[in-house]
Amino acid sequence: MKGIILFGHGARNAEWAEPFHRIRAAILARDPGLPVELGFLELMRPTFAEAVDGLTARGVTEIVVVPVFMAAGSHVKKDLPQMAADAMARHPGLAIELAAPVGEVPAVIDAMACHALDITGNAVAAR
Amino acid sequence: MKGIILFGHGARNAEWAEPFHRIRAAILARDPGLPVELGFLELMRPTFAEAVDGLTARGVTEIVVVPVFMAAGSHVKKDLPQMAADAMARHPGLAIELAAPVGEVPAVIDAMACHALDITGNAVAAR
Repeated sequence: MKGIILFGHGARNAEWAEPFHRIRAAILARDPGLPVELGFLELMRPTFAEAVDGLTARGVTEIVVVPVFMAAGSHVKKDLPQMAADAMARHPGLAIELAAPVGEVPAVIDAMACHALDITGNAVAAR
Repeated sequence: MKGIILFGHGARNAEWAEPFHRIRAAILARDPGLPVELGFLELMRPTFAEAVDGLTARGVTEIVVVPVFMAAGSHVKKDLPQMAADAMARHPGLAIELAAPVGEVPAVIDAMACHALDITGNAVAAR
């Protein structure tokens, strides 16, 4: 069974995680049975390792990690592959695939661009 | 005249800014005459102050700042308002409006959720 981890940085303020919970809810609204968890690098829980453990406990054998980052910095390029390697070492038979950060996805870029135009009152000119 | 600043964190690696350039290009593709600049908090240029100065030099009197962040942490809640206040003090007559971070925008959240479903092969179940 496949599952998803939405990988985020984490912050001290619990409110900061709100958009991450909303992405998870939007996924579950479309596919209620899909195993999907948040997993944070630091300062918040569940941690990435806890998210992996939670998914494997539900029978997930393939995890796709979606980095909820605007761009690929060292957290995505170095920390995440190391955490994924550690998790696979801890769970023999588990496959983890690392996707590109969401900020690189064309549909996400378009949504951000359209939003910027909308809020500046350029929505009409944009269509 | 209105203009937009896409406010980003910045990073050491120039490649990191690529998604930000793509958002700017997507805005200009829809509205080629719109003054829109990137403005970074640190490690990259143009800085936020340089972006403001560049826009005002083009005759912009109202700037909408779009924080290209996943969530509102201290950079969005503290650093940005301070930089905006400094910029308005430097440019009498300039109005700066601070928008919510893009990660809180429903259309952006939906685009991220759909992407996560697509890449996990759940696209069919999602529609």
